[in-house]
Order: sequence, then structure tokens, then C-alpha cells
Amino acid sequence: MDALQNLFRPRSVAVIGASSTRGKIGHAIMTNLQQSKYAGEVFPVNPREKEILGYPCFPDIGSIGRSVDVAVIAVPAGRSLEVARACGQAKVKYLVVVSAGFKEIGDAGLKREKELLAICRETGMRMVGPNVVGIMDTHTPINASFAHGFPLQGKIAFISQSGAMLLAIFDWSRSAGLGFSRFVSMGNKADLNEVDFIMSAADDPNTGVILCYMEDVVDGSRFLRSVREASKRKPVIILKSGTSQAGARAASSHTGALAGSDLAYDTAFRQCGVIRARDMSDLFDLAVAFVNQPVPAGRRLAIVTNSGGPGIIATDSVERNGLKMARFEKKTIARLREALPPEANLYNPVDVLGDARTDRYRAALQAVLADDNTDAALVLLSPAAVTEPEETARAVLELKKKYPDKPVFAAYMGGEGLTEGSRILSGGGIPCYTFPEPAIRSIAGMVDYAEMTKRLNGEQQLPAGTEDRKAVKAVFYDVLRDRRLVLLGNEATQVAQAYNIPVAPVSLARTPEEAVHFARELGYPVVLKIASPKIIHKSDVGGVKTGLSGPDEVIEAYRSIMDSVRHYMPDTPLYGVEVQKMMPKGHETIIGMSRDVQFGPMIAFGLGGIYVNLLKDVSFRLGEGLTRQHIREMIAETKAYTLLRGYRGSEPADLEAIADTIARVARLTLDFPEITELDLNPVIAYPQGAVALDVKITISYGNHLE
Amino acid sequence: MDALQNLFRPRSVAVIGASSTRGKIGHAIMTNLQQSKYAGEVFPVNPREKEILGYPCFPDIGSIGRSVDVAVIAVPAGRSLEVARACGQAKVKYLVVVSAGFKEIGDAGLKREKELLAICRETGMRMVGPNVVGIMDTHTPINASFAHGFPLQGKIAFISQSGAMLLAIFDWSRSAGLGFSRFVSMGNKADLNEVDFIMSAADDPNTGVILCYMEDVVDGSRFLRSVREASKRKPVIILKSGTSQAGARAASSHTGALAGSDLAYDTAFRQCGVIRARDMSDLFDLAVAFVNQPVPAGRRLAIVTNSGGPGIIATDSVERNGLKMARFEKKTIARLREALPPEANLYNPVDVLGDARTDRYRAALQAVLADDNTDAALVLLSPAAVTEPEETARAVLELKKKYPDKPVFAAYMGGEGLTEGSRILSGGGIPCYTFPEPAIRSIAGMVDYAEMTKRLNGEQQLPAGTEDRKAVKAVFYDVLRDRRLVLLGNEATQVAQAYNIPVAPVSLARTPEEAVHFARELGYPVVLKIASPKIIHKSDVGGVKTGLSGPDEVIEAYRSIMDSVRHYMPDTPLYGVEVQKMMPKGHETIIGMSRDVQFGPMIAFGLGGIYVNLLKDVSFRLGEGLTRQHIREMIAETKAYTLLRGYRGSEPADLEAIADTIARVARLTLDFPEITELDLNPVIAYPQGAVALDVKITISYGNHLE
Repeated sequence: MDALQNLFRPRSVAVIGASSTRGKIGHAIMTNLQQSKYAGEVFPVNPREKEILGYPCFPDIGSIGRSVDVAVIAVPAGRSLEVARACGQAKVKYLVVVSAGFKEIGDAGLKREKELLAICRETGMRMVGPNVVGIMDTHTPINASFAHGFPLQGKIAFISQSGAMLLAIFDWSRSAGLGFSRFVSMGNKADLNEVDFIMSAADDPNTGVILCYMEDVVDGSRFLRSVREASKRKPVIILKSGTSQAGARAASSHTGALAGSDLAYDTAFRQCGVIRARDMSDLFDLAVAFVNQPVPAGRRLAIVTNSGGPGIIATDSVERNGLKMARFEKKTIARLREALPPEANLYNPVDVLGDARTDRYRAALQAVLADDNTDAALVLLSPAAVTEPEETARAVLELKKKYPDKPVFAAYMGGEGLTEGSRILSGGGIPCYTFPEPAIRSIAGMVDYAEMTKRLNGEQQLPAGTEDRKAVKAVFYDVLRDRRLVLLGNEATQVAQAYNIPVAPVSLARTPEEAVHFARELGYPVVLKIASPKIIHKSDVGGVKTGLSGPDEVIEAYRSIMDSVRHYMPDTPLYGVEVQKMMPKGHETIIGMSRDVQFGPMIAFGLGGIYVNLLKDVSFRLGEGLTRQHIREMIAETKAYTLLRGYRGSEPADLEAIADTIARVARLTLDFPEITELDLNPVIAYPQGAVALDVKITISYGNHLE
Repeated sequence: MDALQNLFRPRSVAVIGASSTRGKIGHAIMTNLQQSKYAGEVFPVNPREKEILGYPCFPDIGSIGRSVDVAVIAVPAGRSLEVARACGQAKVKYLVVVSAGFKEIGDAGLKREKELLAICRETGMRMVGPNVVGIMDTHTPINASFAHGFPLQGKIAFISQSGAMLLAIFDWSRSAGLGFSRFVSMGNKADLNEVDFIMSAADDPNTGVILCYMEDVVDGSRFLRSVREASKRKPVIILKSGTSQAGARAASSHTGALAGSDLAYDTAFRQCGVIRARDMSDLFDLAVAFVNQPVPAGRRLAIVTNSGGPGIIATDSVERNGLKMARFEKKTIARLREALPPEANLYNPVDVLGDARTDRYRAALQAVLADDNTDAALVLLSPAAVTEPEETARAVLELKKKYPDKPVFAAYMGGEGLTEGSRILSGGGIPCYTFPEPAIRSIAGMVDYAEMTKRLNGEQQLPAGTEDRKAVKAVFYDVLRDRRLVLLGNEATQVAQAYNIPVAPVSLARTPEEAVHFARELGYPVVLKIASPKIIHKSDVGGVKTGLSGPDEVIEAYRSIMDSVRHYMPDTPLYGVEVQKMMPKGHETIIGMSRDVQFGPMIAFGLGGIYVNLLKDVSFRLGEGLTRQHIREMIAETKAYTLLRGYRGSEPADLEAIADTIARVARLTLDFPEITELDLNPVIAYPQGAVALDVKITISYGNHLE
């Protein structure tokens, strides 16, 4: 059930600011409604006109006296608030605010936008925009926009944050012969945003593929929870710009959007099953592939070619894009041997030779499509004396019908002599390119989508139920009361332990005698570390002593630490010395969290110890929606994994214990948004269990403490 | 001076196997010679014809009685040898062997190809092919091929190993309106190969850009020495296929080429200043860019756009491709402020707004091109109500004339309404695309070329003169006589020392007493290691004892090593124990060499020690043509470099000593082709100097020993 049903299939539309003067936006919208053959009621609103394009005109929304589903607002921004209030009183369901002059022009506009949103919230109206081109649905049909013309009908929904981008794509798509179900201009996204439009398109029976151009995500947490559901049903392909640092500045001056870091977007898209397009060509190549061809069952591609060079280039591209060359069954080779001349290459890529006519292509393609080891096929044709590009195209279309589950693509490499053949293929739903690479990239994108969405099923929840939230709050309360944001080691340890994160026990001693007492409790040997919120690199100031095996050594170490630290940092507040049980050696890993502005906790795992900053062997996942499967993958992506599963004869480490710790860090940081950073470094992984030796937690002030 | 002058500008051409029957290859070649308006003499040769296309026909090459520069051979392969012999006797200078039926069909063909080559060698003829489409030069003009038609005249030389690829590109290029200076089909490359044709095109005054499609390189060493000279003069852009493992198999079944590893090709191209195209589109986008636009002086790009979204997308792409957004001077901003409306974005990307006509584009582009901080400019246009795509295109062309040194590119994003504007731009030499990314990739390719070739100048030779080659030969002699290929530690140390590679001294002791003797000589503390050609992981069998500080410990260690190794590997031949001075700690690096089939010594440098295989922090360069600058870059590419130049307060290591060692390894392995593998691991880098603790050398049998 499409939540925005009444927006895209309204029974009635009012156009406030409608005009009978050509060149005015209010005229363009009226013309588009009429020319798109919109079958519902249309109410132009303009106090100075009687009739527009044959529709009786109303002085204001209140005087229509009929139920209005959608009001398109095309009045100057200064009048938009009063108009919106009137719409609210008239029980309008949706506003489409075409007017510009809001957030995009600075503070005054932002204030106006907030007031506009407040009116919507009070009256229950939902809003598209402000600052939009409008919306179109080719199946309703309706064109409630000021774009020039109406798209071809098709299955692609295109959702754009940039109006200019929408207009450019719209213009280009008609020349390219591409069909669309919807065009949506999101503008400033004050109310309805990408999640609403993506979910609506996912529910729309006329949409097969969802394309989105965006510069930021409004609500990362909602995006993560919702869009995965859309991806399970239809491919969602997003071109996210503002990814570079320079690009983020441009985005910010453009729509005032605060762009999240690109890594977070990459991770978020992957965790939601969203396909990220590299560029505009990629976006539409993928769309055409998904609209016309089934998703392949696997990565194994068969290639049929009439020349060697293109076959080699395609084979290279197969490997580079993570696909595999199909290895044919014996009976396929036998069939090919029967059908092709003796010099033909029967193995993949199948070379039907330069003097091949349609019969050889037909026989070869038939044989490889029938093979169970083939998941998809690519036909390459380059012009030679006897080549039959059109006849061969028709043969490919026929064969494709026999194998509806196997995608077939083509590349016709040459000039005008191949245009008609290429047109026949495209017209019949076989994407046809000039070079093999885009075909292979599209197939790879489809397979990646299939694998990503497979992972979205079979969820596993994060651990919950045994955490002691009160203990965490108590620690944070003490820290904030102390006007600090960085937790002491023993405080951070208490927080971690409250969430069952294994930490080598640590106690804060304020005298040498207390240190000895704790050491006896913990058991020798122990480590002593200076406790001060200001000292980050403790070793550098003589603040760490390891391998202490008796009371005398502990007393001596305590004094030596205090002397050394007071010497190096005379004015630093010292809380005492932390006593920790010395743990046996094992593999050093790091588990951490930093909070992304848009998407919340970003969990990191990798190789720990001294090389951590140098080697940057770290993988990331977002905490929201994190599954056990995601955690296993994030571990397996690192080089640390090679060490942990047993490297050069060493015993494998307890990967499940590492995974548990990651899950608990995610749970903790999702539960407490005031934790801005968390580091467990190192986490020592043993053949049985894992334990963090050091916990660093930084919190922020805020209204988070209940 | 073009070495192949007489091939591409021959005074006379004979066609052996010429025919007056349409559809025959010998007829197509004759037709092409005539239609290309070739001005030299044409001699068809065919005993069964009197005249072909108006040219008197000769029964054999000998009966022509005139000097023949080029003989195109289009007879069945079985007759090719006798025909070639006759050509040799008639003092023909070049053979272009169109005939197929050689290496590409297997052993029988390979034998025939070798005989054909032998005839050329005996008679001094040079050969193109066999198994080629032919050659074309649009400036001579001459079309000595069986391709259908003749290319447009232009500056691109296209050299192809695959005939089918050449025909496809040829066909496509005419539809795309691309002009060429030459088309060369290399075929099996039995005699003339890519190096000959690239060097010839570099000498050709009509060629501006050299494009090459290849599946392998015939003579890597010659390629490395020669192609760098071509790159210094003109861009050389190569699409090398057969890069993937699967692709290499396809290449091998196609032309019987033995493909080198892709890493070696990548490295070789970079060291020669060759631009490697990612795919076919890339190859031609780059060619068009180089032919039409000057190479930018730097990485700073200015963008002028009439809409925000495309500007952001372009900005992202700038960063992703290693370019930079130009930061404008104050006076530029002032000029833009004057010329543009107040809402326009004056900073890069300059947004002239959706209602911009030509005047704003002109003013903005003029201002940014005049700015000294701008190295190149990109104009983005998407359609809006008042956009003037054609007028704006003409304004761009005018401005471009004022700034001949700054490349200008365009992307017109939209449909048919922009086609004419786009045509005006392309026609005037401004490459114009539908999306911004290909423009930015091309600019980046140009800048990369400029930087690569800058590095090719200012050579520095490898060290030479003080090596003791005889000492190396003496060691190899002993090893081979001993029927071994792996050198013992002390042997490898001698070889390294003969080339002034610093190695911690090591002596081979055969008794505990000898060990004590050597230890005293070297100075305590020492390390003992088992000496056996069969034991690779010495520690794993108890074969290493470190930190021995006196005679008793040495004797005890000797016995313990022998006992342990005999226990683990009872039947292994043991040569004794190596005694090495124990070196102080420092940064562990690795320097190594593995020999590439095509390109010779491939030198590696990276992080050493236990993580070496795990972290794979290694950079590569080929020994042939290696400069000091290359060595500095290869060091700087690694993470090891971060450690070596002083990490977290540690003292910087002696990078020059490391560079010296790398240069000496290159010298040694270039001088001795029988060294197949060499490893210095670890090489300890100190603040002063560096020293290898372990040297492994493997040699091969062969005819290398003089």
C-alpha cells in the first residue's frame, strides 16, 4: 500500500498561482496538467482570473468548496505562508511547493521554511519541497510540474534532490528513448524526503527500478531502517554527490545541506542493499539493465564473439568487475563443435570467427544459454564482410524468449552499419552498447544487488536484555557532574562491563597501599597506569609499569609513576594509579565507534597495537540495523582476519568472542547517543575468548540523560 | 627521421595475389590502393591476369623489373614462403603479409612463420605480420589493406594487434567523425612489432597522438628502452588486454601470445610515460582530448555551470580523479560579482544560474580563464527556458582562441535541443560530452601524462664500475657444479657483497670450534643459523639461536641446532651452521627481485619482518631504465616510508642507504639474468646506513655464464 497514493494519484489538484499568461510557471503547470491527460479535477486558483485553459478559476482555495488532494503552490515565497494556512483550513492533503526563496537563500529563507513546515505539522498536511520542479506520474497520468513536456511511460522512478538535474535527465531521457513511471523533485525536503519517495515507489506497482540523485540524507536512522525494505523488493540505485571534500563544500553552498562523510554513506548504502552508481552513465546503464533483464542467478558469464580482440577485452572486464567466465559442460562443447568450424574457439569466450553469419551466432548462443553453468550471456559483434547484424539481432531476441531467466546483453562494435541491428536489440529489451565494458559493469551491478539483498534476509538481532543501563547512567552522571567528557579508565571499564564487554579488570588506587591491595585481589602479575583525564599517551610520561609480580614492585612502581608524571606534567590533576591484571599475549585487535552526524554509531574493527594508525587495517559498519552476518563480513574484510583464523601455524582466535564484543559495542552506542567516541584498543583475541585491555570513552553534553 | 619511412610512404607497391574478382582480398587491396589516391607506382602480381583495375599485371615479382618498396602478400599461406623468397631476390624492402595460417593456427603455422622470418633475415627485408589487415596512412595517402573504405584524415595513429579490433574501430570512428593519420595492423608481429610502429609514429610529423591496442609485448627490454623516448615527444596511449588471468588464457588461445603479469605491464607503462587506457571509451576520449586541446599546466580546474547539481557531481569527480578545484584570485571574484546576479555562486564551481543566457557564460568563462590559478576549464550546460546552447557554444569557441594554452572542455547535459550546440563545440575542437565525468577523466589523463613525462627527463644512471662480477660468477659456478639452484646464506652474502650491497657478515662453520672462531672474528653477540639448501623456515625446526654472547653459548647453540634439525628433518643434507654478527634493532624493510618473463628484473621494496606476507606493503619498479627518481618514488609509495621518515617521534632512517641498496640490487639482477629471485629480508634501516640480515638468491640453468 503506497503511503503517498493520494499524492501520485490524486482525485483533484488545485494550482495556486495558476496563470493564463504564457511563460509564467503557473501557466506551465496548468498546461502540463491538461496535456498529460490528467483525469481528476483541476482547480486553478487566482483572484485575478476567471478561467484558465478552459478550467473555471477560483479566487482562493477556500472558495473551491470541494475536497482537494494536492495543492501546487506557485506564488512568490512571501505569500506562501498565508496560502499554506488557507490550504490547511481547506483540508488539503498534500502541498507541492514550487516556490523558491526558502532555505536555499539563507537565514531568512530558512525561517520561512520552518514556519511553512510548522503549518503543515499543525494541519496534518504533508509537503513536497519547497523549491521543486514538481511531480509526474506517467501511469496516473499526471504532470504537476513546470518541466517542458511529459516523459515516455516506463518502469523507472527517478527521484532528484536537484531540480536542474531532474530537468537535464528528463530532457536527455526523451532523446535516449527511456521510459519512466515517475519523476519526483524533492527540493529542500523540509517534510517529505528521500525515504518517503523511495518507499512510495517501492509500493508503486508501475515502478520496477528506483533511481535517486541526492546530495544528503535527512534522517540517517530512518533511512537505514526503511530503505532496506525497499531494496528487498526492487533495486534502489542512488547517485550520491557531494562525496568529495570539495564537493561537500559545493553541496553546502547549493542547498545548505550538511553532508555526512562519504564512508558513512558508502556503508549505509551497502547495509541497505542500495546500489551506488559511480556516475550518471552508470546510473542509467544499471536502470536499463534492471528494467529489461532478469537478475542473473550467479556470476558466470558466457561470451559469444566473432573476433578475438573484443573477446579478450571483455574477458578482462569480467574479472575486473568480479564476474566469472562460465566453464561449459561437456555436452555444450560437443554442441559447439558440431555447429562451428574447426578453427572456432569452443571455450569461453566462444569465437564464432570473422566469417560468421547468423546461423553460427544462433547455434553458439543457444548452446551456452542451455548450459547450467551459464548465468548470463553477452553477444559481441564487430563488422566483417559477411556479418548480418540485423538478422543476428533478431535471432538473439528469439533465443532470449526461450531462456527468460538468463539475462542477455550485447555490444555491437562499429559504425553506422550496425545502428539498425543495435536498435532491434534495444527495442526488444536486450541492452546493446558500442563497447563491451558497460554491459559487463551492468551485469556485475545486478549480481551485486542480488547478493546484497540476499544478506538483508535472515536477520539476527543484536544482543539485548542483559545490559545494566542504570550502571552506565550512574557513571555518566558522575563524569558530567565532574565537568568532564572523557571517562577515566575505571569508569570506562564499568560502562563496558555493564554491557558485558569483556575488559581486563582495573581498579583505581589512590595510595601505594591501595595499589597493593587491588593487586592481591586481581592476582599477580599486574600493570600500573597513571589515572588522569588529561594524559593520553601515558607511556610517554613514564606513566605505565608492566609485569609487576609482588607488593614491593607495586609500591616502587606507584612512586616512580607519580614522580615521573609530576616531573613531566607538574600541573595536571592526577586521580591516582590504575591497577590492572596483566593479561597473557595474543592477537591485538581494535574495536571502536565514532558517531556519524547522519547515520549514528559507525563501528570499526581491525588490527590493533602500535601499527593501528600506520596500517589503517580497519573495516566499518553502521550500528543501526547491524546483523550478525554484517559483523562476520566486517571481520573477514580485514587483514587482521588472516592472523586471527590462524596464520603460519598459530592457533585460530575466538572469532565469535570478537563478534560478540562488536555487537555489544553497537548495542551500547545505539542505546547511549551521548557516547561520541569509544575505543577498545587493544582487544586481545585468544583461542578462547577475547578481552579489552584499555577502554576509552568520550561523551557529549546533551539532553540524552533521561 | 622515421625508420619506417619507406613502409608508410613507399614509392611503389606490389600486390602479390592481386585479383580482378570482387570479394577476393587481392581485389579489395587493389581497390583500396586506387581509391585512396595513392600516388606511387602500383604493380599487381598474378600469373593468370593481364590487367587489374587498369594497372598492367605481372606474372611474378621478378618480372616487374623496377624497384619495389612494399610487397603486400595476399596468397594462401602455403605459397607464402616461395613468394617471400622471390621478393627477397627482387630486393623488396617491406613485406606486408596479409595471409593467415601461421602462428595463430598452431605448431605447423608456427614453423612456417619461423621460415618466413628466416627469409626476411637472410634478405634484409622487414615484415609487417603475418596475419594482418594491412596498413593505411591518410597523409601519404595510401591504403594497403583489405578494410572496407578509408579513414578521415587526422592526427591519431592507431596500432592494433587484433585485426578485428582494428576493423571495428575503423568502422566506428567514421560514424564518430574521428580523423586518423595511420592505421597499422600488427598481426603476429613475427618481425616488426609495437616498438617499431610506436617509434615510427613518434617520428611521423602528421601524427599527434599514438594509440595502441595490444595483447602482449614482444621484447620487454627494448620496449622499456625505446618507448620512453616516444612518450617524451607525443602521448602514447595503450589499451593492453589479456590483463586478467581469464583474459590471459583467452589471449593465449587467440594469438598464442605469452602474456606477462599485469603488474609488470602497469609498471612498465608508468616507467615509460605510457598512459594506460582503462577501456575502449577511455582510449578514444583521451585521444580526442590530446588531439584537440593543449596539455594543462597543472591540476587546477575551473567549472562554469548553470545548475547546482551537475556542478556538485563534477566537483566530486574532480577530486576522485586527482584534480583540484581552482581557487580564484580576488580580482576574478570581483569580476564575477560584477557580471553575475547576486544569487550566483562566484566560487568554483561558478553557478551562473538557471536563467543564464550566453552573456553570463561568456563573462564567467572569460574571468576564470584569465585567472592564473586556473589550469583548465569545464563548461556545464543543462537546458532551461532561456538557455542558448548554440550561441553559448560559439562564445566558448571565441574565448578559447584567446587562451590557447588552457584546455577547455564541455558537457551539455540534455537531449536533442543540445545536439547542435554540442556539434558546434566538437567541430571547433572543444570536446563535448553528455555527462561531466568523461571530460574530467580526460583532463586528469592529460595532467598525468605531463607529470609522467616530466619524470622521464633528468635521468640518473644506476651505480656501475665498482662491482666484482668475477666474484659473482665464481659463486654461481660452485653452486651449479653442486647441482643446486638455491644459494647458501654465505654464498648469497658473497654475491651481494660483490655488488656493495651491505649484509651483516656471515661465515659458514662446520664444527662448534669453527663457530667459536668466527664468532670471535665477527665480535659478540652473534646469531647461529642452520645452513642447508633444503630448509626454508629455519626457526620452525629449531635452526636459529640468537643473542649468543660467549664461546660456551656458541658451542651449546651449535650442538642444540644440529640435534634439533636432525630430529625434525633426519634425511636433510646439512652444510653446517652460519655464524652472523647480531645487529642492533632498527626498522625492518624488505628489498627483493623477481624476474618477469617480458620485462626482466622487477624490484620490490616494502615493510619487512613477520608481517611482510600479511600486509603486502610493497611497491614495484622494473630494473630496466630505473632512475634514482623512480627509486625515491617507490620508497615513498609504501607505508614503510611513514615509519622510516620518523614515526611518532622516532629518529628518521637513512633513506639514501635504502635507495642505494635498491639500485645495487637492480644493477646485480640486470647484470646476471640467471638470477630468477632475490630476497633481502629483513634489511634493517638505521639512522646511519642499512644492512641486510638475510640474503636469498635463486638462479636458473641457462646459457648465461660466459
